Amino acid sequence: MSDIAIPTSQPEQIGLFDRALRRVASLWRDMASAVAGGAEEGIEAQMRACLDGRGGEVSARNRAARLAQEYLAADEAGRLAFLRALAGFDSDPEMVARAIERVQAARDRAERSAAQAQLRRALEPPRLRLLTQFTTIPDGVKFLVNLRAHLLRAANGDPLLAALEADLKSLLASWFDVGFLDLRRIDWSSPASLLEKLVGYEAVHRIRTWRDLKNRLDSDRRCYAFFHPRMPDEPLIFVEVALVEGMAGSVQRLLDEKAPLLDPREADTAIFYSINNCQRGLAGISFGNFLIKRVVALLGAEFRNLKTFATLSPIPGFCRWLEHALAEDPRLLSEAEAEALLAAAPPPPALPAPEGAAAGPGAAPAGTMPPSGGAQALRRLLARRGWHRDEALAKVLEPVLTRLCARYLLAESDPRDPKRARDPVAHFHLSNGARIERINWKADVSEKGLRESAGLMVNYLYDPAKIEDYHEDYVGEGKRPAATALRRLARGWG
Amino acid sequence: MSDIAIPTSQPEQIGLFDRALRRVASLWRDMASAVAGGAEEGIEAQMRACLDGRGGEVSARNRAARLAQEYLAADEAGRLAFLRALAGFDSDPEMVARAIERVQAARDRAERSAAQAQLRRALEPPRLRLLTQFTTIPDGVKFLVNLRAHLLRAANGDPLLAALEADLKSLLASWFDVGFLDLRRIDWSSPASLLEKLVGYEAVHRIRTWRDLKNRLDSDRRCYAFFHPRMPDEPLIFVEVALVEGMAGSVQRLLDEKAPLLDPREADTAIFYSINNCQRGLAGISFGNFLIKRVVALLGAEFRNLKTFATLSPIPGFCRWLEHALAEDPRLLSEAEAEALLAAAPPPPALPAPEGAAAGPGAAPAGTMPPSGGAQALRRLLARRGWHRDEALAKVLEPVLTRLCARYLLAESDPRDPKRARDPVAHFHLSNGARIERINWKADVSEKGLRESAGLMVNYLYDPAKIEDYHEDYVGEGKRPAATALRRLARGWG
Amino acid sequence: MSDIAIPTSQPEQIGLFDRALRRVASLWRDMASAVAGGAEEGIEAQMRACLDGRGGEVSARNRAARLAQEYLAADEAGRLAFLRALAGFDSDPEMVARAIERVQAARDRAERSAAQAQLRRALEPPRLRLLTQFTTIPDGVKFLVNLRAHLLRAANGDPLLAALEADLKSLLASWFDVGFLDLRRIDWSSPASLLEKLVGYEAVHRIRTWRDLKNRLDSDRRCYAFFHPRMPDEPLIFVEVALVEGMAGSVQRLLDEKAPLLDPREADTAIFYSINNCQRGLAGISFGNFLIKRVVALLGAEFRNLKTFATLSPIPGFCRWLEHALAEDPRLLSEAEAEALLAAAPPPPALPAPEGAAAGPGAAPAGTMPPSGGAQALRRLLARRGWHRDEALAKVLEPVLTRLCARYLLAESDPRDPKRARDPVAHFHLSNGARIERINWKADVSEKGLRESAGLMVNYLYDPAKIEDYHEDYVGEGKRPAATALRRLARGWG
Amino acid sequence: MSDIAIPTSQPEQIGLFDRALRRVASLWRDMASAVAGGAEEGIEAQMRACLDGRGGEVSARNRAARLAQEYLAADEAGRLAFLRALAGFDSDPEMVARAIERVQAARDRAERSAAQAQLRRALEPPRLRLLTQFTTIPDGVKFLVNLRAHLLRAANGDPLLAALEADLKSLLASWFDVGFLDLRRIDWSSPASLLEKLVGYEAVHRIRTWRDLKNRLDSDRRCYAFFHPRMPDEPLIFVEVALVEGMAGSVQRLLDEKAPLLDPREADTAIFYSINNCQRGLAGISFGNFLIKRVVALLGAEFRNLKTFATLSPIPGFCRWLEHALAEDPRLLSEAEAEALLAAAPPPPALPAPEGAAAGPGAAPAGTMPPSGGAQALRRLLARRGWHRDEALAKVLEPVLTRLCARYLLAESDPRDPKRARDPVAHFHLSNGARIERINWKADVSEKGLRESAGLMVNYLYDPAKIEDYHEDYVGEGKRPAATALRRLARGWG
Repeated sequence: MSDIAIPTSQPEQIGLFDRALRRVASLWRDMASAVAGGAEEGIEAQMRACLDGRGGEVSARNRAARLAQEYLAADEAGRLAFLRALAGFDSDPEMVARAIERVQAARDRAERSAAQAQLRRALEPPRLRLLTQFTTIPDGVKFLVNLRAHLLRAANGDPLLAALEADLKSLLASWFDVGFLDLRRIDWSSPASLLEKLVGYEAVHRIRTWRDLKNRLDSDRRCYAFFHPRMPDEPLIFVEVALVEGMAGSVQRLLDEKAPLLDPREADTAIFYSINNCQRGLAGISFGNFLIKRVVALLGAEFRNLKTFATLSPIPGFCRWLEHALAEDPRLLSEAEAEALLAAAPPPPALPAPEGAAAGPGAAPAGTMPPSGGAQALRRLLARRGWHRDEALAKVLEPVLTRLCARYLLAESDPRDPKRARDPVAHFHLSNGARIERINWKADVSEKGLRESAGLMVNYLYDPAKIEDYHEDYVGEGKRPAATALRRLARGWG
Repeated sequence: MSDIAIPTSQPEQIGLFDRALRRVASLWRDMASAVAGGAEEGIEAQMRACLDGRGGEVSARNRAARLAQEYLAADEAGRLAFLRALAGFDSDPEMVARAIERVQAARDRAERSAAQAQLRRALEPPRLRLLTQFTTIPDGVKFLVNLRAHLLRAANGDPLLAALEADLKSLLASWFDVGFLDLRRIDWSSPASLLEKLVGYEAVHRIRTWRDLKNRLDSDRRCYAFFHPRMPDEPLIFVEVALVEGMAGSVQRLLDEKAPLLDPREADTAIFYSINNCQRGLAGISFGNFLIKRVVALLGAEFRNLKTFATLSPIPGFCRWLEHALAEDPRLLSEAEAEALLAAAPPPPALPAPEGAAAGPGAAPAGTMPPSGGAQALRRLLARRGWHRDEALAKVLEPVLTRLCARYLLAESDPRDPKRARDPVAHFHLSNGARIERINWKADVSEKGLRESAGLMVNYLYDPAKIEDYHEDYVGEGKRPAATALRRLARGWG
Repeated sequence: MSDIAIPTSQPEQIGLFDRALRRVASLWRDMASAVAGGAEEGIEAQMRACLDGRGGEVSARNRAARLAQEYLAADEAGRLAFLRALAGFDSDPEMVARAIERVQAARDRAERSAAQAQLRRALEPPRLRLLTQFTTIPDGVKFLVNLRAHLLRAANGDPLLAALEADLKSLLASWFDVGFLDLRRIDWSSPASLLEKLVGYEAVHRIRTWRDLKNRLDSDRRCYAFFHPRMPDEPLIFVEVALVEGMAGSVQRLLDEKAPLLDPREADTAIFYSINNCQRGLAGISFGNFLIKRVVALLGAEFRNLKTFATLSPIPGFCRWLEHALAEDPRLLSEAEAEALLAAAPPPPALPAPEGAAAGPGAAPAGTMPPSGGAQALRRLLARRGWHRDEALAKVLEPVLTRLCARYLLAESDPRDPKRARDPVAHFHLSNGARIERINWKADVSEKGLRESAGLMVNYLYDPAKIEDYHEDYVGEGKRPAATALRRLARGWG
Repeated sequence: MSDIAIPTSQPEQIGLFDRALRRVASLWRDMASAVAGGAEEGIEAQMRACLDGRGGEVSARNRAARLAQEYLAADEAGRLAFLRALAGFDSDPEMVARAIERVQAARDRAERSAAQAQLRRALEPPRLRLLTQFTTIPDGVKFLVNLRAHLLRAANGDPLLAALEADLKSLLASWFDVGFLDLRRIDWSSPASLLEKLVGYEAVHRIRTWRDLKNRLDSDRRCYAFFHPRMPDEPLIFVEVALVEGMAGSVQRLLDEKAPLLDPREADTAIFYSINNCQRGLAGISFGNFLIKRVVALLGAEFRNLKTFATLSPIPGFCRWLEHALAEDPRLLSEAEAEALLAAAPPPPALPAPEGAAAGPGAAPAGTMPPSGGAQALRRLLARRGWHRDEALAKVLEPVLTRLCARYLLAESDPRDPKRARDPVAHFHLSNGARIERINWKADVSEKGLRESAGLMVNYLYDPAKIEDYHEDYVGEGKRPAATALRRLARGWG
């Protein structure tokens, strides 16, 4: 999901956290040293002591500091052992069984209600309580978020770790409810340490230099992020917005450092051109929907001239799908399209095919035009370096690719769910109540943009008056709201 | 629990909240007006719409604003109907039954773990999710805290409301975990609006005037409170501390506005003389333990001369117990004590008792000294207005009352739990790891102090080096750490 | 000048400062102790050391701390000696004489310019530099402001002290230029310590209780003050504003704590009902003009419905003038007025006058109606307790007093300057470009209001579009802009 | 003064200001548009209107906004015309002459005092008042600071502009008194916009990259700056400090980004390695002395282990002096030194000198060893690229250069003032009460370091206990405190 990017490696994040750790390490040492009993007790015994409440709740929290310290000092094997020990504090089957009996024996609603409450408590594994005890240590919430990031990597099929991960997710979902988050504007007067993190977390359109960054925070730009009160220096998700005249159709133009500055009060359009999730450990807890709508409201209040709120989004799955569809469906290209493509990229002189050999891709027998000839030609064209700079070629490719992209966005579905758009970014914005508005040619001619979506990008339009209806249409019936032109294009009437 | 006071009526709090409401009302109106569909739908339909996610999560949250509005606009009956409707969104018995079956059919730990997780989800009533949706509205967290205060009053035997109350408590306990709270110092440069709340919430030793308040915030005093980031103007609990020389033995002296100011850097003792819980809706979610220990740590770091950390606490149950014990146990007073008391308060000339009448209290037949004669005398003495100002009388009463009080604190237990001190304030501090240090004569001669504890107060000592052990002794074995002198007194060796 | 009040005694301020002193005293001690050489040197020697720059500029500043300490520790005599010593560091007559010669010898503009600059330097007394050295000590600026307050009291005819005072004034005027001040809103969430000062400084309409204060800071009120960055807890001047519907005509109604709250967004009028200077030591350095205009701009931007900006001001000199005018000018009252007054308050039965005695005031020979009979009647009526509650009487008095007041405000001039309004508050607002808008009957029925202005108050209107012209009219030509009705009234056409 | 660097060109600063201008331009426009009368009036007429107080003081300030706007919109010629017009508002010679008469006619001290005060007022040119009116406009103080920077460039011999510059300097000196400045720490969490300015203003050791900058703000570094409340985003002067073990002797080592991080609590020495003045317009108003001493105090309080406070300073005038001295004084080098140098750099084979030609530098006739032979050799050696990397050469050069440098710092004086050290950085630190502590070989091997001081740097030691005495010794008697080893070296006993 490259619009709502979760960087897969996040070397920066780990680096950042390790630096922060040095800072908190001594604080933890101080807390830990207040605890009676030594580290020699073993991880599990220490966890048990936390749960026993031995020495009182304050002591338990100090013990948690020591546990955190040991986890962080450990190597990967040690950390896994730590997670397994923690996951082992599961609910007691006996207690659960007895509580189930009581639910089943309940004679009326009141009894059942009480028995169910008891059952819920019995099902709450002790490890949940232990996890909570980490909140009090300095940077403890960040510690737990990173712990979950580790679990997501490590759980991989292990049911016990998966259960621990699920517990931790439920805790984090409760604490990171959007009601508890702060929306803050980020600009060039924000702390350099925060801006440095932005650079690390931006995965949609990489920030190359401080000058690039500064340009994205200039007076005709806006950047907003959600923060949690207990992780005040760590953005959770951020969005970059450009205030422009008219719908933006090229990300390179948006990011051009030499482009003249626009007086933002004269802008009529706000373009959301990059949204990034920053914390792997919060995967599956969604903020993007709220972020976009709060920012729309903020901008609308600040700039009375703004009429249009839209994204300029990547189409990360387009080329992958196209490759697949070209192979599967001979009728994907119309005859006219196939001819035009072949004219632009005639097949290479055929090598004499070894007898009986099946014709490989790209090697149709000359003279007869097989249905896949256009597909081959398309592949050849897209494989040419710098094809997007060849104006003649562009003329041939633009109508074909734009039509196919419209079809991909409007008509292609997730193989597991026919109501769901195949493209993950499209799914995200459609779920939020946006409309597919415009497909832009040569909109992202970076190496990645060309590779993933043949340079195409799409605008999703957020129309405050229609958001609810569109959301209902899509979530309820799988209908995908789109501009008329796009709808016609997708049906092949373009 | 008058040390950890929860004002029962809290007229101020309600007043404060209602004022704040006026401020947020228009914000809520704005949010609510963004929702399609009218108020005529009925509360339950609206709640269902919230849960359906109709129009998306952002819409649901706007709907919550309207619901909050309607609750607050309603009268008591309407509010109760609201709570019942909300409580009605219980978990689905069918789903629970099926989930139980799956748990019972599980063949190994992994299957059971997964099935249990599913069961937990099935047991989570939809109303929980609905409650969470209130977090996003302005002052929504405070709204929920007040909702629980209402539920605690209203639940009273109603199992459905009790279940809703328990759900809400679990949510609040998660959000108000001490790790998420801010400890802030309050002083005379704090906002007047906050100080006004302090006046409303102080229930141990009422603040009478702004001058009284200012005196409590002077340079030789400290006041600290916990706050939640989403209720930044609402203290959750606060503690008042006096920095003094030597252990304080009189609260009137501590609160004397004309007492000279001490240079706090010369103080050797920090006296915690008032701790107040402010939010009825957070009853049962404890902060006091953490508050005291964090404040001990802060003060210790700021003032190197501080050697002793102790409370000056009320003994709210003493007189009630004494009354009861005097009636129950003829040997409560020694003979010598009884004689001394009778000498100070000889029985009134007996009226000729109506025949066959049982001798009423205070009316022993003259001439024969019944075992309860001393008890009667004690009652008579304590009933005299201004007895504490009569020095001769004080000489007689002091040893008797002090001994009985030591016994009450050190030896008397909660009828339902022999390990637990009968006095609630004693129980609180002993659970925290404090030691019963000293009983103070004429320590609180306010009308309330005389009525509840015959003017006695007690110091609980927090010795950082012993807190864990003391906690263990008390919580584990019911042992009550106390100064030697008090222990001897309680055994009657005083 | 009771609108722009400078409390004459200011016991609060002195108290406040002395408290603050305790706080800074130890800081000063620390600075002072860093200075070589002892206090035994004598004030003058120490001052000389400051000026010599002995030990460097940092040392000089430490020495200033010791000097400040000694001044504050001294009694009145000691403080005066301090001021005299300081004033003694005057410019060197020799140097001045030589510099004058050079000016007189200058042959062209360039030479003269250079010589004049040198002369200016020669005229700058060393004490100026010494005063500047106090800025670095904690609360040093406040120290200098208070020093000037002392000088203003003490200078009284002493030319040397007067010169020192003038030097200090010029320094303070430079530092307290309005460009360096912060305009801050004060409300109920401001620090209690600041609000306490407001109570001390409010001299126009005394704040009686915290409840009264809170009412003045409620949501339909505004309070703004100027602060200096180096005296962040000390307001310099503040204004209280009520947001109301229609021009306010009674200060008691404005201050009524039980009056219903108005939604400020519905207000059409902002009434400035109290302006107070807080620092005697800044007398003659004016902020009021800027304060009013900045607040007008702020309020206008916040509340779009506001159409009218006006004061509700006292008329502190009215009764004093009236008394004087009634004695001087027999024709002040018209015959009709005199008759009406006499009818309402017939002369007391005359005592037989001692022979040859001049008829005292209030003792006209019966039978003949002297021109001053009306005047006497007027005096008698105003001397009656509670006259303003007697409706019949009010009917008689209202037209007379209103007319006379219009004349006082519009036509009476300062004896020393015919262009200047006799009433000091009128002069202040007219200089600022305001217009005399309306005279209000029974507008301030407090004891002070009745005594000073027979209960009358006046609205001065600030019309942003006319401020400059009105200012020019008044300052340039002595014309006093006023509403037509008032102008007619003043001419006796009312 | 390259330690206390004032960048000569400051392209950054001008750039920064121009950017800020765009921000304030519209605010100024708004203010200006409130003024009656148009721009067509001409600069001088507008200035006169400001001074007349036409329309009141608030109007005058609005007019100032328009004047500022016009100045900034003008080209260099227009700006000069502006400055000349402003300078033209000089004091009135008539008034001055009359005031002088009064001074001369004064018969006693009181009269003279009053007359002098009047004379001072008469000498205050109206332009001073006009300059003050710029304080109220947004960024007005920065405007004035930049105006003075312009004047310093432009005044150049023009007595009127010089007088205006002097007036402005006196205003700025009063407003920027150190007592009004805020000392703030700058670190990696400071606003990026501020850090960007640091990069622009650092002129002693240029900051090359953001990584270099981050390294200078790491946990074992400190950076402090003075700010003025009205220029909160503009540092006035800043100092960079490294916390290290032992006296630092190489700036390249200090700035090495790969050097391991030291726990600052273990450091025993604070090295001030760069001090930069940021505002050309504040030239001659000194903050450096205060800055160093306040930072010494702050660091001493934060890090108890710090024992030594010293600089690592450039010696900007050394090579220039050396070149000069070698030419002037044949005995500057001892015979032994000269021999050693010649051995390392034998003279090149002599070209046959043209007859009668004076031997040019570096061309002594072969065979006879002139006294300047060593000097020539020294020059040749220093002219070799990379000489400092040649260990054998270093052995020859180190004792010679170190000795000469000691002599330069300790014994060479400013030609115009024998008490003043010839080196400007030495003079700055000696005036502050520092001691010359150690000369460091190969301490700054940057191109600039080699060129200016042959790679040498010097530590000046700030010993809090001796600062006052050292200051006195130097300022009073011209004595230069130095470590014994250096004193012996300077006398040639090294």
